Parts: sequence; C-alpha cells; structure tokens
Amino acid sequence: MKKTLGPSPTIYPMPALLVGTYSDDGLPNAMATAWAGACSAEPPCVGVAIRPNRRTHHNIQARRAFTVNVPSVALAAKVDYLGIVSGNDEPNKLARAGISTAPGNHIDAPLVLDCPINLECRLAHSVDLNCHVYFIGEVIEVHCDESLVGADGKIDVAALAPLVYCTSVREYWGLGEPVGKAYSIGKSLATGRSK
Amino acid sequence: MKKTLGPSPTIYPMPALLVGTYSDDGLPNAMATAWAGACSAEPPCVGVAIRPNRRTHHNIQARRAFTVNVPSVALAAKVDYLGIVSGNDEPNKLARAGISTAPGNHIDAPLVLDCPINLECRLAHSVDLNCHVYFIGEVIEVHCDESLVGADGKIDVAALAPLVYCTSVREYWGLGEPVGKAYSIGKSLATGRSK
Repeated sequence: MKKTLGPSPTIYPMPALLVGTYSDDGLPNAMATAWAGACSAEPPCVGVAIRPNRRTHHNIQARRAFTVNVPSVALAAKVDYLGIVSGNDEPNKLARAGISTAPGNHIDAPLVLDCPINLECRLAHSVDLNCHVYFIGEVIEVHCDESLVGADGKIDVAALAPLVYCTSVREYWGLGEPVGKAYSIGKSLATGRSK
Repeated sequence: MKKTLGPSPTIYPMPALLVGTYSDDGLPNAMATAWAGACSAEPPCVGVAIRPNRRTHHNIQARRAFTVNVPSVALAAKVDYLGIVSGNDEPNKLARAGISTAPGNHIDAPLVLDCPINLECRLAHSVDLNCHVYFIGEVIEVHCDESLVGADGKIDVAALAPLVYCTSVREYWGLGEPVGKAYSIGKSLATGRSK
C-alpha cells in the first residue's frame, strides 16, 4: 500500500555538490546544492538550482559561468557548512572552511581544489522557477584527481567515495557496493532469455 | 594533480529513475534515466533529460504529464532493460519486464507500482538542449510505500535502498552508510567553534 506525502521533489539519491563562482570583489565563493543533475550530452550540460538570495545566483548571472565540484565523503562537514552559510553573509566563507580554489582554465569561475572532480561550466540557459533559478551550464572541461583515473580512462568510484544527499531525512550517505553493469544486466530481458 | 578528461556531465552520484508516460495507444510506458534532478521547491519541480527518439519524449509533449519513479536496488535489471529498449521499438516493454502500473491520481501518466516512490508531475517547462529536451515538471503528489514511512513522516532510506547510477564506469551501485546530518555537521564551522 502506498501513502501520499504531498508534493516535494522526492528523488533518491541526490548528489551533494559545490557550485563555484567569483563574487564581484573577486573572491571565490562556493555553495552546496543537492538540486542538480545532468541535462544533455551534445553539448554536455548540467543544471543547478539556486535561490535568488544566494550570492551564487548573482555571481552566475554576472560572470555567466560556474563550476560544479564533486566532493568525497571526507569533505562532508565543509560541504554542509557551505550549504548553511550564504556568501552574502560570510563573503570569505571558503577561507573560513579552509577550502582552496584555482581559476578555471576556460571560464571565469574557480575550481574547488578540495573536490576530486571539477566541471567548468559556461551558462547556457536560466529557467526561472519562482523560488529557484535552474541554471544550465555547458560543460567545457572536466578535471579529475589523476589518482582516480584508471588506465582505461574510467573513474575509480570506490576511491572517489562521492557524497550522497538523502532528502526527507536530510542526511549525507556514502556509496555502498556495485549492483551491476548498466546497458548489460537488463539485456536478458531484452532478448527474452530470462522470460 | 588533476587530469583533464574532456567535457561530459560527470556528476556523482546520479539517480537511476523510471519516467512513466502514456503512449498514444493508451499503453503505459516507462524509460530509465539517470539525467534528472530536483529543480525548485515552490512550486516543487523536478527535471528529466529525454532524447527526441524516445517514445517518452513524444508522450510527455502529448499529455503534458509524466511520473518519476524511484526504484530500489532489487529492480536494477528491469530498470536497465527499460533504459536499453525504447517504447518505439517495443511498445509493450512494461509487460515484457513484468512491470505493473496504475493511473496517476492527478495527472495523465502512470505510476510504476514496482517502485516504492512515485512522483506525479505536470509538465511546466521544456528546455531544448539539442540532443535532449530537459522536461521540468511540477510535482503534484508523491506516493511512497507506507512501510517506508516512519511515524515522523520521514522515509526510511536504508529500507528504500535506492538505486544509484555511476557514470564513467556505467554501473549501478547501492547506498552505503550515513555520514552525517545535513544542516548540522557543518554548524561548528559556521560558529567557528572548530577553528
């Protein structure tokens, strides 16, 4: 039996990401968001939902660029801090959190060096959804800790240990174990072999 | 040291979701996507990226509605099948996969009953991103297996056991363990107590 919970964006899992921007004074800023995802392949795009009262909202509009940074579980407390505190209230919050950045290679936004994966994004679309703007950025380049990239070019997910956000309980979780290969474990159904 | 990987939407984790729609012949359809996420709170919105060659793309435009369905790890092989095979090639793919549906209460799209969480969504925005359209739907209602909802109204994440998609390696994973409470574990940084 199902129970109705009322309307909310109840998706599992969500990522716990940092969105990096430069403020008008040139200081790097980053905020945490779980409301984000991949949007397209050609061009590669990702989207992030940002409230208008966040410094990030102004910064993305001003510089038309942002980074998406994928933290590991070890960074959980700092990610949480960067979600709680707005750059409008604490302009130097990255220094306070002991977070380091470097300029993007292609766009006017900072890479969060503490995160093992950084996406450089150029603003492509802004969708006004009332309480949030959904900013869709074209991914221009992806940086990854070289220790996480295998000889086959694939990312070592267990070593990455990405941070997972679980809505409703409002908790961060870690990843567990592999369940199966995509584009593979469903093939037996496609051919009818398992019917 | 970081390594550049070239541009792609390299976000971790991604959800592995089923998007439910009705086809023109009235048959329920569902496809898997990992390119999806929460977009806003008021109104609550979620987005899903769909290629124009999928039946789902036509169906969402025709009925201006879709469901987002959150599977557990036990459904991984069926989810994978529903991602591999388009409803344009196998119009009755849900029956083939042994998947059951029921009509939404508020919108013209089917709930995938095999998934413990179902979101009824009314199409609000369509963003054309060339190879994909990013469909943003307003969440009208959320259904959840009542066995997963505690007395406090919160969802039991461990029992839900949501399916996680990991890009690059193209694998499904399960969730691990809780890492910490959001809006909480970063507070010591906000007050400076841990500095």
